[in-house]
Amino acid sequence: MTSTLPPTVDPARLQEALDGRWAHVRRDARENLHDPEMLPVYGESTAEARERVTRMAAKLAESGRVTLGFPKEFGGEADAGGSVTSIEMLAFVDLSLMVKAGVQWGLFGGAVQLLGTRRHHETYLPGIMGFELPGCFAMTETGHGSDVQQLRTTCTYDPATQTFDLHTPHEAARKDYIGNAAKDGRMAVVFAQLVTQGKNHGVHAWLVPIRDEDGNPMPGVTIGDDGPKAGLLGVDNGRLTFDHVTVPRDMLLDRYGQVAEDGTYTSSIENETRRFFTMLGTLVRGRVSVGGSAASATKLALDIAVRYGNTRRQFAAPGEEREIVINDYRVHQRKLLPALAKTYALHFAQGELVSTMHDVQTAVHEHGQEIDEPAQRELESRAAGLKVAQTWHATRTIQMCREACGGAGYLQENRLPHLKADTDVFTTFEGDNTVLLQLVAKGLLTGYRDAFGSLDGWGRVGFVADMVRETVLERTAARALIQRLVDAVPGRDDEVPMLDRGWQLKMFEFREKHALEGAIRRLRKNSTTPGMAPFDMFNDVQDHVLKTAEAHIDRIVLEAFVDAVDRTADPAAKELLDTVCDLYALSIIEEDKGWFLEHGQLTPSRAKTLTATVNALLKELRPHITTLVDGFAIPAGWKAAAILEEEPGRQEAMAARDAELRAGNGGGTPEGTATDLDVPPGQ
Amino acid sequence: MTSTLPPTVDPARLQEALDGRWAHVRRDARENLHDPEMLPVYGESTAEARERVTRMAAKLAESGRVTLGFPKEFGGEADAGGSVTSIEMLAFVDLSLMVKAGVQWGLFGGAVQLLGTRRHHETYLPGIMGFELPGCFAMTETGHGSDVQQLRTTCTYDPATQTFDLHTPHEAARKDYIGNAAKDGRMAVVFAQLVTQGKNHGVHAWLVPIRDEDGNPMPGVTIGDDGPKAGLLGVDNGRLTFDHVTVPRDMLLDRYGQVAEDGTYTSSIENETRRFFTMLGTLVRGRVSVGGSAASATKLALDIAVRYGNTRRQFAAPGEEREIVINDYRVHQRKLLPALAKTYALHFAQGELVSTMHDVQTAVHEHGQEIDEPAQRELESRAAGLKVAQTWHATRTIQMCREACGGAGYLQENRLPHLKADTDVFTTFEGDNTVLLQLVAKGLLTGYRDAFGSLDGWGRVGFVADMVRETVLERTAARALIQRLVDAVPGRDDEVPMLDRGWQLKMFEFREKHALEGAIRRLRKNSTTPGMAPFDMFNDVQDHVLKTAEAHIDRIVLEAFVDAVDRTADPAAKELLDTVCDLYALSIIEEDKGWFLEHGQLTPSRAKTLTATVNALLKELRPHITTLVDGFAIPAGWKAAAILEEEPGRQEAMAARDAELRAGNGGGTPEGTATDLDVPPGQ
Repeated sequence: MTSTLPPTVDPARLQEALDGRWAHVRRDARENLHDPEMLPVYGESTAEARERVTRMAAKLAESGRVTLGFPKEFGGEADAGGSVTSIEMLAFVDLSLMVKAGVQWGLFGGAVQLLGTRRHHETYLPGIMGFELPGCFAMTETGHGSDVQQLRTTCTYDPATQTFDLHTPHEAARKDYIGNAAKDGRMAVVFAQLVTQGKNHGVHAWLVPIRDEDGNPMPGVTIGDDGPKAGLLGVDNGRLTFDHVTVPRDMLLDRYGQVAEDGTYTSSIENETRRFFTMLGTLVRGRVSVGGSAASATKLALDIAVRYGNTRRQFAAPGEEREIVINDYRVHQRKLLPALAKTYALHFAQGELVSTMHDVQTAVHEHGQEIDEPAQRELESRAAGLKVAQTWHATRTIQMCREACGGAGYLQENRLPHLKADTDVFTTFEGDNTVLLQLVAKGLLTGYRDAFGSLDGWGRVGFVADMVRETVLERTAARALIQRLVDAVPGRDDEVPMLDRGWQLKMFEFREKHALEGAIRRLRKNSTTPGMAPFDMFNDVQDHVLKTAEAHIDRIVLEAFVDAVDRTADPAAKELLDTVCDLYALSIIEEDKGWFLEHGQLTPSRAKTLTATVNALLKELRPHITTLVDGFAIPAGWKAAAILEEEPGRQEAMAARDAELRAGNGGGTPEGTATDLDVPPGQ
Repeated sequence: MTSTLPPTVDPARLQEALDGRWAHVRRDARENLHDPEMLPVYGESTAEARERVTRMAAKLAESGRVTLGFPKEFGGEADAGGSVTSIEMLAFVDLSLMVKAGVQWGLFGGAVQLLGTRRHHETYLPGIMGFELPGCFAMTETGHGSDVQQLRTTCTYDPATQTFDLHTPHEAARKDYIGNAAKDGRMAVVFAQLVTQGKNHGVHAWLVPIRDEDGNPMPGVTIGDDGPKAGLLGVDNGRLTFDHVTVPRDMLLDRYGQVAEDGTYTSSIENETRRFFTMLGTLVRGRVSVGGSAASATKLALDIAVRYGNTRRQFAAPGEEREIVINDYRVHQRKLLPALAKTYALHFAQGELVSTMHDVQTAVHEHGQEIDEPAQRELESRAAGLKVAQTWHATRTIQMCREACGGAGYLQENRLPHLKADTDVFTTFEGDNTVLLQLVAKGLLTGYRDAFGSLDGWGRVGFVADMVRETVLERTAARALIQRLVDAVPGRDDEVPMLDRGWQLKMFEFREKHALEGAIRRLRKNSTTPGMAPFDMFNDVQDHVLKTAEAHIDRIVLEAFVDAVDRTADPAAKELLDTVCDLYALSIIEEDKGWFLEHGQLTPSRAKTLTATVNALLKELRPHITTLVDGFAIPAGWKAAAILEEEPGRQEAMAARDAELRAGNGGGTPEGTATDLDVPPGQ
């Protein structure tokens, strides 16, 4: 394969393709979000970090950048997509600050905005937006993180006093890991089981003062500190326990459920489970923000590792004087380039997700339309799936980048330790990734249920293979384009060139469809197996079900990338992105080649061609590796990595001195070399 | 598959099997190494951590536990294996302390002991052993970490003054990441190019004072601080720069190379490269210690995650009252159990390595025998390979364990963040893992060279397939047993039950042999390709070469496990280990099933059986998961994890209260549940 890529691609054109619909928000951040105090400080204590981040959060409030999502009448811009993009940009600067902002304006403010009604908005939104009223989002309990419908905190209405009694019944029911709780929070949106007239109506939310003006805990409220964490030192996570705390009736955030003075409960959504998940669904923004922020940290880590790999030299080739730049080693390329390609892929999928989220939420909250349930459900599934993909990709990629920088990658001054430690919690907060994968899988299986009637136990899961395509595959925006590409695949699948985009798409589609069909078949079989406990029916297929979800997410991501390439205006940038898309698609297939071989989609000889093709793509993309990180357009002032701050010319000076040394001035010429395999045998 | 395992296995019997040859050293540590100040302190600053660890290192010196490896005449026990085992046990307690000890007594003390001669021993070993003379091992430079033969620091002899001139020629030549340098070190073993009579004789080591009695840098020595790191806060890593520092002639550690008063250089090893790697080879203990310490951290992380998963419940099964313990979910088992199995496998391989190292070193250093070059080379290759396997396994497993504990896994009070951050550098220090894999591969390819004559460029690499078995596979202690098992495989490979140990061994052997043959074939082809640059000949095959090394390491590890099972006395423990060995072997094959399918060693239907067999093994081992971590016998006092310190009975009390709540007292009964798929649709 000879390279067909243009010799140079302007990174600014790549940046345009990446910046997308909220380019103005990104541009504003790059140009104006420059406050040295916002950058992480290396070696700061937990107390210092918390202090700094609180101060910076107040500054952020003044900037208006974090209030884009609030209603215009309170000074916001009713721009849900803009608010998420703004958080994503903040994540480049400092992840503690990003999380603090996400708690204050996303989770806490968002809950008041979306679960509360006019009286809550008028009274509290101005203080929330201005950070005069720092608050918490108190949902998770020590004993219930994933299964939040089973929270144990109760809030029981007493018509005699017209107040609620908020109570933590046992230690496992204390609210835990709550951001803003340990130090700053004045109020909290507290989630608890609503009990009135002797009946439990499920989880609802109340706005509850937790500290008085002097910062002391309110009567009945016990506040604990989660103490130092792996990272995010600037976020004051804590624990809240309520000992029969009195909460006035009007502090119930009552958009989706109301309690009258006499204790009568009303709601427009009758089914309790549906009501709870409707409430939760409005809060999807948090999950979308976490995915986007994980992506920012990943991009920054890659930026650092790629630039380091451009200047770091180690081992001379046989007969060569100068040592080899480590980015020239294939194994180093195998680390960096597929990760870069996947970062691009996820970026485009994230862009599509934010755009969808914006439109769905704007329709409901700005234009007063009814919730479009299928669209909302799909949004939640996409948000969950991409959160999983982004955060695991961040964890793995940042780890790889730190290793790719050797000892330098272990020093805080080079930023990578902070990126790793701060993002580490992303895989389990805002939904544990494994649990979220099950949610995605459930969405796929539910498509089935909708098509074939109620799913009441596994026994009645319908199974018609052809329907999979309709219910699962007909969903992404780029569907028409994708279909054209798939239909255009020439000849037999095992003869098509691997760079054929249609073939790549077909592989992704086949895997998802086949995995889903298999999961359904196995679930149906288990449900008719005499004596099998319901839990075992499910548990026996759990690994298969999660595999289905992963295949689904991969396909969504690839389609978003294909669509983005299609929409790229600049021809050179388009060609480069097209090749990056090849690398993404083929490295995903290569990673899972066991599955494709097992299911007859690759022959052994095709599998070997696959490896060779990926290697050829690495070679082709190597000269563009710096352009690819330049495309992220991360301002130098945000990077805070000592290894990127070398004086100009130092590399050259070092090299010159090295040459001198080898020529014998001050060092003589070593008698032998150990370069036949470029590895010293005993080191 | 119905379980054939005994219903209970005594963990003490497992422990016996694991404890092996240095059981007395392990026992002593478990019983007597209990100082609360040695445990990591959560939230301590870098300065506090350094202070504490220095104090603890002095205490350790008094205990005699860290000086086992030194000669008897100075108060040691000449017990190389014991010293490595002692460090491995210390790693359970605090990794900063372990690294500090490894630097002082392993690297610094070890270099003086093994590279120095009698006058160095007499003058310095007592102070080193007693920690009155803290020291550094100053090899790595900012610009040269992997390719240490190309270090740029020079040490030039002047016969007029009978001194050496030690000099750092440019910034990239400064010594970097040097433990004990930033705060405590009084002397350093400094590696530099030895120049005398105008000729460079390659890298040698000198014992150089770096601080005076008052702790001030010696004239010409500039000491920098690497500052805060991702972890290992208690280790004072720093930078050393030498500006024409005068070093007396007798400070050259001259066991392998001497400079006479007039500047004449002599050495018993004529070839410079061989001499350098002979010197390095004596220091293999460091690499062995890192592997063992990574294993300790992994065991502790698994201990925490398994116990947490035994009590943590989430989501109720359909129709069930009580929620399910997360260790009962297959996907959770898929995380924990294969990692546990691999930890066992690596433990036994490590035991074999330590034993070999002990015997090889004792023969030379105690019994004055000549170095057995092939044995020494194989030891170095094994040490490198296991260091890679242990440290990547640690990085991945500790990460997985932290995620398996959800939010609790992110809090420092639960130990996992420390384990992750502290071990993170292990993958790149004491040899970058990728570079070490190349070293292992080189060893395999060199076996070829030895069999077929000198390897002078790739062009003359001989290729005879049958020789692979002889030169590569005929090496491990358990060879006879392995051969019997392989020979006993009944019938065709694709019909043999997958629990047949011989079949598993054959799969591992085949992969290694085939990968090696392919690498050689490709290298030979490249070497005869006109116009191909020597670097490209190698680089084109680099991924293949590393794959070969990984396959080799996997095989060595499996054989060690098989041998250990064979040697286990207790029948119940033996049966359990046998099943854990099955899980290790089959999950490695499953992980790489793409390769086995591609190379015709698995049919698609066998690949499916493989997945089912692994799942069946998980089910069989689930009831023994606690026994498996109990087998590590980690004293409770070493764990320092808040989630393991619950008061007895609390779980039961919580459960009772939960049941009460569900019965309506204080909570009422929720109207609906979301358990049809055990995942709330909107969470």
